[in-house]
Amino acid sequence: MVQFMGTRHLTALVESVGLEEITLKLVAYLEEDFCRWPVFDKISRIASHSAVGVIELMPTSDGHDYGFKYVNGHPKNPFHGLQTVTAFGVLADVASGYPTFVSEMTISTAIRTAATSVMAAKYLARKDASVMALIGLGAQSEFQAHAFRTVLGIRKLRVFDVDAKATAKFLDNMGHADFEIFVADTIAHAVEGADIITTVTADKTNATILSDSMVGRGVHLNAVGGDCPGKTELEKSLVERCAIFVEYAPQTRIEGEIQQVAADYPVTELWQVMTGLATGRQSEDEITLFDSVGFAVEDFSTLRLMRDLVRQTGHFIDIDLIADPVDPKNLFGQLGTQRDNVVVALRNAV
Amino acid sequence: MVQFMGTRHLTALVESVGLEEITLKLVAYLEEDFCRWPVFDKISRIASHSAVGVIELMPTSDGHDYGFKYVNGHPKNPFHGLQTVTAFGVLADVASGYPTFVSEMTISTAIRTAATSVMAAKYLARKDASVMALIGLGAQSEFQAHAFRTVLGIRKLRVFDVDAKATAKFLDNMGHADFEIFVADTIAHAVEGADIITTVTADKTNATILSDSMVGRGVHLNAVGGDCPGKTELEKSLVERCAIFVEYAPQTRIEGEIQQVAADYPVTELWQVMTGLATGRQSEDEITLFDSVGFAVEDFSTLRLMRDLVRQTGHFIDIDLIADPVDPKNLFGQLGTQRDNVVVALRNAV
Repeated sequence: MVQFMGTRHLTALVESVGLEEITLKLVAYLEEDFCRWPVFDKISRIASHSAVGVIELMPTSDGHDYGFKYVNGHPKNPFHGLQTVTAFGVLADVASGYPTFVSEMTISTAIRTAATSVMAAKYLARKDASVMALIGLGAQSEFQAHAFRTVLGIRKLRVFDVDAKATAKFLDNMGHADFEIFVADTIAHAVEGADIITTVTADKTNATILSDSMVGRGVHLNAVGGDCPGKTELEKSLVERCAIFVEYAPQTRIEGEIQQVAADYPVTELWQVMTGLATGRQSEDEITLFDSVGFAVEDFSTLRLMRDLVRQTGHFIDIDLIADPVDPKNLFGQLGTQRDNVVVALRNAV
Repeated sequence: MVQFMGTRHLTALVESVGLEEITLKLVAYLEEDFCRWPVFDKISRIASHSAVGVIELMPTSDGHDYGFKYVNGHPKNPFHGLQTVTAFGVLADVASGYPTFVSEMTISTAIRTAATSVMAAKYLARKDASVMALIGLGAQSEFQAHAFRTVLGIRKLRVFDVDAKATAKFLDNMGHADFEIFVADTIAHAVEGADIITTVTADKTNATILSDSMVGRGVHLNAVGGDCPGKTELEKSLVERCAIFVEYAPQTRIEGEIQQVAADYPVTELWQVMTGLATGRQSEDEITLFDSVGFAVEDFSTLRLMRDLVRQTGHFIDIDLIADPVDPKNLFGQLGTQRDNVVVALRNAV
């Protein structure tokens, strides 16, 4: 049997363990996996594009466990009452090839994206960062705010969204949660004085959410919303002012902000900073950019954590996803058919 | 909610509908999809190899539905009481990106591989074919025998396996099922006088199951067991005597018998024969080879059929694989956390 964690199990898990605790544990799992980056089997995700969105598979393996995530991105979905992003994931045993764990990942992807952002900021933002601008108040926004408070103690937010309803929803969710929130009327206003600027908009276009002139020295840019070909958020000249950090360069060059610059434009993979192979922020004045698109290893870390947590807490059910015949060569026998038919000549050679 | 068909549901479905009926319906779905081959988004499967096996993802889309299969291949698994191949699959709605149907596919892959074999034989074997040799009596063997009887009326089998237990299991499953079965003591003996030769062995090596001298004129070769790099069943000179038919040439060149010949060796894709764009068998004397490795479109057809059948019969349960918030932008609100914390200053601009 395969263990299955649905959204109700995850919600119950968050209730019992707490989102702070899960976020802290997930950052620890992510750091562990980023620090053993070379062991992972890495490929850019496999995308199937349509006019209205994309469906992607994101596999990886550390040689012991294999994991993959299914995820879609459909920016117009909210107009039809549907989510922009839904996801689920699977772990399997490399030795046998048997799947072991299936998990909802719509909510846990939201948690992992925010955990990855704050892990990067821990290495790249100025140590004295205390104010974060948050541009885009959709489904990912509260998770970003929550993770930055939990891990880096960021309590001052300057927020903006074109949609007043999204803003109201954000305030309703976060207004009670030990934040000091300033609601700006423009993006330029929101980013004023911010140490960290997080962009999480969802339009499937090359938008200029942040223009060059808006961003001052020493800022850390956490660019989350640009994550597929033809979808970016930053002005090209701004990208060129930054020290650029990415998850997995071959994928980010296809999907990230750096799709705007040359294919050999210098970037640093985050794991190199985390393991001391490369330098992160070089000065207080430097603008650092975490050009985040989301990579399979992050989902692998998330699946590992969720598997470990559900085994501790029992928040799962068993499902018969794969057949389990007594004799592995006798799959047909599991069907219990064909046994009542006509008996015919059976000749046996010596 | 997403509809889930586990192995118990599939077993119940087979009990109620019948394997013959499912096989006939599946061949019809396969023919429908092969005849609209150009509409599919096609890529070679994405493989993650280890020393003991392979785990693969096989996605495709017809622009309306997206489907993928997870499948492993671990030839040594039976030594540990495990199956060589397990699988599951998913359908999703291209318009929204939402998954709609999750299915066991260990058993249904066995059904689909056999259905694809017999569909190919329908187009490629001699019309008067009545005797099939079956080399390899593992988990796939009964499904092959069953499908060839159901669709082509093949009742005479000449079988061989190195493992006497596998042979006994095959006879136990099929001996009562309106077949005339001859158990051979060698492969050469098994293929004598056969009109169709089906090879379904599982060793992950370049084995020579069939050598050139064993195969006479007019035979149709249904080569199923060679399906990954470094795993073949036919002698190279035999391959070169055949008119070769494949599912999706770019994948078969990596995985099939034709990995033994030049990268531009002429092959015909089966859908071209089925749609009249290419000729199948050209004479009674020609040796035709269906170099089958299994392609994503076949799993797509299978998932479509299973989805349609379970909706008609109710053999499924709903699972909460993805979150379904009332407000799609309010995923965080689904967690029900963070609402009881300290109330702090909330300042609003303008």
